[in-house]
Amino acid sequence: MEIAVLLIECPDQPGIVAKVSDCIFRHGGNIVNLDQYTTDPYGGRFFTRIEFGFDGAAVERAELEAAMGELAASLDAQWAMHYRDHRLRMGVLVSKYDHCLVELLYRQRSRELPVDIPCVISNHPDLQPLAEQHGVPFIHIPFTAETHAESEQKVLEQVKDSTDFLVLARFMRILSEDFLKTYGKDIINIHHSFLPSFKGADPYRQAYNRGVKVIGATAHFATADLDEGPIIEQVVERVSHKDNIADLKRKGRMLEKQALANAVFAYIEHRIIRFANKTVVFT
Amino acid sequence: MEIAVLLIECPDQPGIVAKVSDCIFRHGGNIVNLDQYTTDPYGGRFFTRIEFGFDGAAVERAELEAAMGELAASLDAQWAMHYRDHRLRMGVLVSKYDHCLVELLYRQRSRELPVDIPCVISNHPDLQPLAEQHGVPFIHIPFTAETHAESEQKVLEQVKDSTDFLVLARFMRILSEDFLKTYGKDIINIHHSFLPSFKGADPYRQAYNRGVKVIGATAHFATADLDEGPIIEQVVERVSHKDNIADLKRKGRMLEKQALANAVFAYIEHRIIRFANKTVVFT
Amino acid sequence: MEIAVLLIECPDQPGIVAKVSDCIFRHGGNIVNLDQYTTDPYGGRFFTRIEFGFDGAAVERAELEAAMGELAASLDAQWAMHYRDHRLRMGVLVSKYDHCLVELLYRQRSRELPVDIPCVISNHPDLQPLAEQHGVPFIHIPFTAETHAESEQKVLEQVKDSTDFLVLARFMRILSEDFLKTYGKDIINIHHSFLPSFKGADPYRQAYNRGVKVIGATAHFATADLDEGPIIEQVVERVSHKDNIADLKRKGRMLEKQALANAVFAYIEHRIIRFANKTVVFT
Amino acid sequence: MEIAVLLIECPDQPGIVAKVSDCIFRHGGNIVNLDQYTTDPYGGRFFTRIEFGFDGAAVERAELEAAMGELAASLDAQWAMHYRDHRLRMGVLVSKYDHCLVELLYRQRSRELPVDIPCVISNHPDLQPLAEQHGVPFIHIPFTAETHAESEQKVLEQVKDSTDFLVLARFMRILSEDFLKTYGKDIINIHHSFLPSFKGADPYRQAYNRGVKVIGATAHFATADLDEGPIIEQVVERVSHKDNIADLKRKGRMLEKQALANAVFAYIEHRIIRFANKTVVFT
Repeated sequence: MEIAVLLIECPDQPGIVAKVSDCIFRHGGNIVNLDQYTTDPYGGRFFTRIEFGFDGAAVERAELEAAMGELAASLDAQWAMHYRDHRLRMGVLVSKYDHCLVELLYRQRSRELPVDIPCVISNHPDLQPLAEQHGVPFIHIPFTAETHAESEQKVLEQVKDSTDFLVLARFMRILSEDFLKTYGKDIINIHHSFLPSFKGADPYRQAYNRGVKVIGATAHFATADLDEGPIIEQVVERVSHKDNIADLKRKGRMLEKQALANAVFAYIEHRIIRFANKTVVFT
Repeated sequence: MEIAVLLIECPDQPGIVAKVSDCIFRHGGNIVNLDQYTTDPYGGRFFTRIEFGFDGAAVERAELEAAMGELAASLDAQWAMHYRDHRLRMGVLVSKYDHCLVELLYRQRSRELPVDIPCVISNHPDLQPLAEQHGVPFIHIPFTAETHAESEQKVLEQVKDSTDFLVLARFMRILSEDFLKTYGKDIINIHHSFLPSFKGADPYRQAYNRGVKVIGATAHFATADLDEGPIIEQVVERVSHKDNIADLKRKGRMLEKQALANAVFAYIEHRIIRFANKTVVFT
Repeated sequence: MEIAVLLIECPDQPGIVAKVSDCIFRHGGNIVNLDQYTTDPYGGRFFTRIEFGFDGAAVERAELEAAMGELAASLDAQWAMHYRDHRLRMGVLVSKYDHCLVELLYRQRSRELPVDIPCVISNHPDLQPLAEQHGVPFIHIPFTAETHAESEQKVLEQVKDSTDFLVLARFMRILSEDFLKTYGKDIINIHHSFLPSFKGADPYRQAYNRGVKVIGATAHFATADLDEGPIIEQVVERVSHKDNIADLKRKGRMLEKQALANAVFAYIEHRIIRFANKTVVFT
Repeated sequence: MEIAVLLIECPDQPGIVAKVSDCIFRHGGNIVNLDQYTTDPYGGRFFTRIEFGFDGAAVERAELEAAMGELAASLDAQWAMHYRDHRLRMGVLVSKYDHCLVELLYRQRSRELPVDIPCVISNHPDLQPLAEQHGVPFIHIPFTAETHAESEQKVLEQVKDSTDFLVLARFMRILSEDFLKTYGKDIINIHHSFLPSFKGADPYRQAYNRGVKVIGATAHFATADLDEGPIIEQVVERVSHKDNIADLKRKGRMLEKQALANAVFAYIEHRIIRFANKTVVFT
C-alpha cells in the first residue's frame, strides 16, 4: 500500500469533506488519518490534512491528482498532494554552533527524519568535519558585510534546485528579502527564545536580564520580518535565579534541538499549513 | 445554527468518511471540526468525531438520526449523536476533601463546564455547606463496612435516573462491580497518582517513599478493577527531595483539579471514545 | 519549637555564612533549611534564606534580633527576620473576573495559604457575594477616569495599615506611581501572559494573533513600569491552532490561578528577595 | 581561584552549618553556593552541599581535608571533598541503541559534560565507529547467557581502575549483584519509562497497552533490584491515542537523552547524595 497526504485550504462551505473524501474513495483510497479545522463556523476558512492509503498498482497518481485538481478548482482551494515514498531534500545552513546540526544529522541517519540532505552550507569552516562524518557535503561560503549579497547568491546557486526546503540551524546571518523571494520555498529557522519575547540578538542575555522564570526556543518560518514569521513549534523549560547566562544557553540548547527537530518532523510529514502569518499544525 | 457532535467507531474499510460526510451534507449539515483516527491502516479500527452545524429550522433531528442509524448499521458501527444544546447531568460523589469539588462547582457556575449538577452525594456531611453555597442539593449517605451495599443502593436511587454520568471527586469508598453494572453509565474517577504507579491507598506516601522526581494525577473511567480503568487525562509536576508528603499533597491537589476538570471538559464535549481499556480523546 | 526565617542580602565576602550561622547557633537556633546564592563568585552579591528552629521559652526574639542586627550592620546587609507564627495580612484587589480570587480564598480557607485577608476591594460590586461567602469583608470602591486619584486614596485608607502586602488578582485598573509609593509595601500582580510577551491590554488576543504555540501567566511585583516589575513565577501550557481566544482564556485561567498562588505561597514563606528588577526565589 | 565542593551527610544537631562554614572560612575559603536540607527538623538527617572558592597558592588541600575530616568525625558524618579541576572518568556501557551514547559523546566533546571517557564498552560491535569518531576507545565484549559472568569479569577488568563511575546508556544486559559489589562505585542507568511504572522489558509497549497520556524516562542508580535503585532524574512528555509504539519510542528517545544527560551533569557537579534508596539532588 502506498501512502499519500493531501493538504487543502479553502473558504468554508458545506460538503467539502464529503466531496473530497468521496473523490479519494472513488479512486481507491482508504483514509487512515483525517484532521480538519475551520477557523470560524460562520464563513471561516477550511483546512484539512488527509492521509490515505491506495494500491499503487491499481491507481495512477496522475489520475488521482487530476481529479483532485478539478475538485480543488471548484472549491477555490489551495491544495497539495504528497507521497510518503518521496523524500524531501533539506538544505541546512549553519554557522559555528553545532548542537542543532548534530541533532538533525543524527535524526536523519537514524531515519527518524526521512529526508535527504544535499548539503550543509556555512559561513564558517568549523563544522566541515561534522558534516563529512555523516557523509553530507559541506560548502563553506564566507559572509562579510560587504559580500553579503554575493554570498547569498552563492548559497542560492547551491540550494535553488537541489533542495525542497531550507533549515537555518543557528545560522547567524540574516537572509535578505531578495534571498527569500528568489529561493521561493519554505525556510525553517530556530530562534533561541520564546518568541515574541527577546527577538534579535543574544536572547539568552535578554532573558537573563529580564529575570524570566521560564525560557524557550521557537521554530518558525523565516520571513522578511526578522523573528516575526509564522511559529511552528515552541518548547520551554523552567529556570531560576541560579541560572546564569551560561546555564540558560546550556538548557536552551536542548530546547532548540527539540523545537527544531519537532518542526522539521512536522514539516516533512506535511502536517503544516501556513495561513495569515500563523500555522495550522495537524497532530 | 445548531451544533451536533457525532461519534463513530467501527471496523475500518474504505469509504467511511465519504459515506458519513455525505450523509451529513445531504441533511444540510456543515462540518466544522472533524477528527479521525485508525488504529492500524491494515484492518484496524476506525474512530471519528465530527462536529457539524445545521439549520435546526430546516432539519429534523429524528430524520438525521434515522439516516445516520441506517448508515451505521451498514458499517457495523457503534455511534452516538449529541447536540450542544443538550446539557448533560453530572452527579458528583465526594468524601471530605473539597478541592476537586470546589473546582467542579466553580467551573460549572462560570459556565466553563456547561453541565447540570442534580446532586452532590457524600459519605460525610462536611461538604454540605459548600454544595449549598453553589445551590446544589447535597445528600449525605453514610457508608460503613457493614452497610456498604445498602448505601450503594441509596446512591443508585439518587443517581440512576437523574444523572447522565458520575464523577468521583475524591470519593474514598470503592464502588462495587454491582454498582457499576446497575448504574450502567460512565463514571469518571480522579486518582491522585500517575497511574499505573502507586495504585490504591495513600499514593503520595508511596511516591514519597519511592523518591520519584515527578508526581501526577490521573483521571480515568472507573471499572471493576481498581485504578485500572481507561485513562482519560494525566497531569504531572516536578518535585524534589525537599518536598515532604504534605508538599506532595499540596502540589498534587492542583494536579488533581486540573486532570479531573480536563477530563470532565473532554467528556461533556463528547471528545472521548472508550476502546479496549483505553481512550481515544479527540483534541 | 518555634520557626524563624532569616533573609539576608549583602555584598559578598568570605565568612558570611560562618558568622550568621554561628550567631544563630549561639542563640540556640537549629538550622533546618539553608539556601544561599551568590550572583558572582568574584565580588558579587550574597543572598541567603535560613529557616531555623529555636526554643521560644529559652530564647528572646528581641535578643536574637539585636544580635542579628549588629552582625548585619557589620556586613552592610539588608536583612529581615520573620516568624512562622506571625500571619501576614494580605489585601486583595479585584475587578470582575473571579477565578484568581476564588483560588486565593479557597487556599486561605484550606490553610494552604496561612494568611489573614482583612478585605477584598473591587472597582465593581460583582464579587461581593463570593468574598462574603468566605467571611471576608468586601469593599466596593468605584473607579472612573475622573475619580482615579480619589479612588486610589480610598483604597489606601483601607489597606495602608491593615495589610502587609497586596495582591492584584486581575484588578483591571493601573495603580499610579503615587499609590505604589504611598503604600510602600509589596504588591503582587498577575498578568495573563508570558511576560515580557504581550504586555498591556488583552494579552490572549495578542497571543492568538501572533500564533504562539505556548501561552503563559506571570506573577510579578507591581512597579511604576506597567508589566515590567520583577518576575516571581511563570506558568505555561501548550496551545494549538485549534484554540480560539475563548480557549486561550479558559486554559489561561488555570495558569493565572497557579502562577499567582505559587507566588503568594513563596511570598508568605519568605522565599523571595527582590534585587535589581529581578527576584531570588528560594525553593 | 580554585573551586571545591563539599558534601556532608550526618545526623542533625544544632551548629553543624556554623562549624562547617567556620572551618571553611578559617582555611581561606569563600562559600559561593550552599544548599542544605534536613529530612525532619526533629531528629532528622542533615545534608549539605557547599561550593567554595579558595586561593590554591595559599591553602593546602591536604590541610583543608584534614581539618574537615576531623570535624566530620566529630559530627559522625559521611563526607567528600571534590575539586573542580579534577575531571571524573566516566565509563559507558551500551548495546545497539545509539541515541544516549550520541548525546553523552556530544556533550562531552562540547565540554558541557567535563568528564573523561576512558572507554565505551558494548556487547555488540555496532557502535564502534561512533565511539571512534569521537576519539573514544571502543571495547567489544560479547555477552551470552552462558558467558555472562565471564563477560562481566572482562568489563570489570576494563573499568575497575580506569573509571570513577559507569553509565549504562541503554545497555541491555542486567548486571549481577556480584558485578555491582566488585565495581563498588556508582552506576547510573537510564530506564525508558516513568518509574515505578513499567519496570523491566519493553516499557514503551507496556505504556502503549496501558493507554497512558504521559510517558517518561528515568535516570537512576543501578542496584541489585532491577529498576528499583534511587531515582536521580525523570523527564516526561504528553502522548495521545494517536501515538503508536514507534511514536512512543521516538518521543521517548528525547526523554531518555535528556534525563540521562541531566543526571550525569548533576553527578559530575557533585550535586547528588544517595540516602535510603532515594537521592538528594541539590539544584
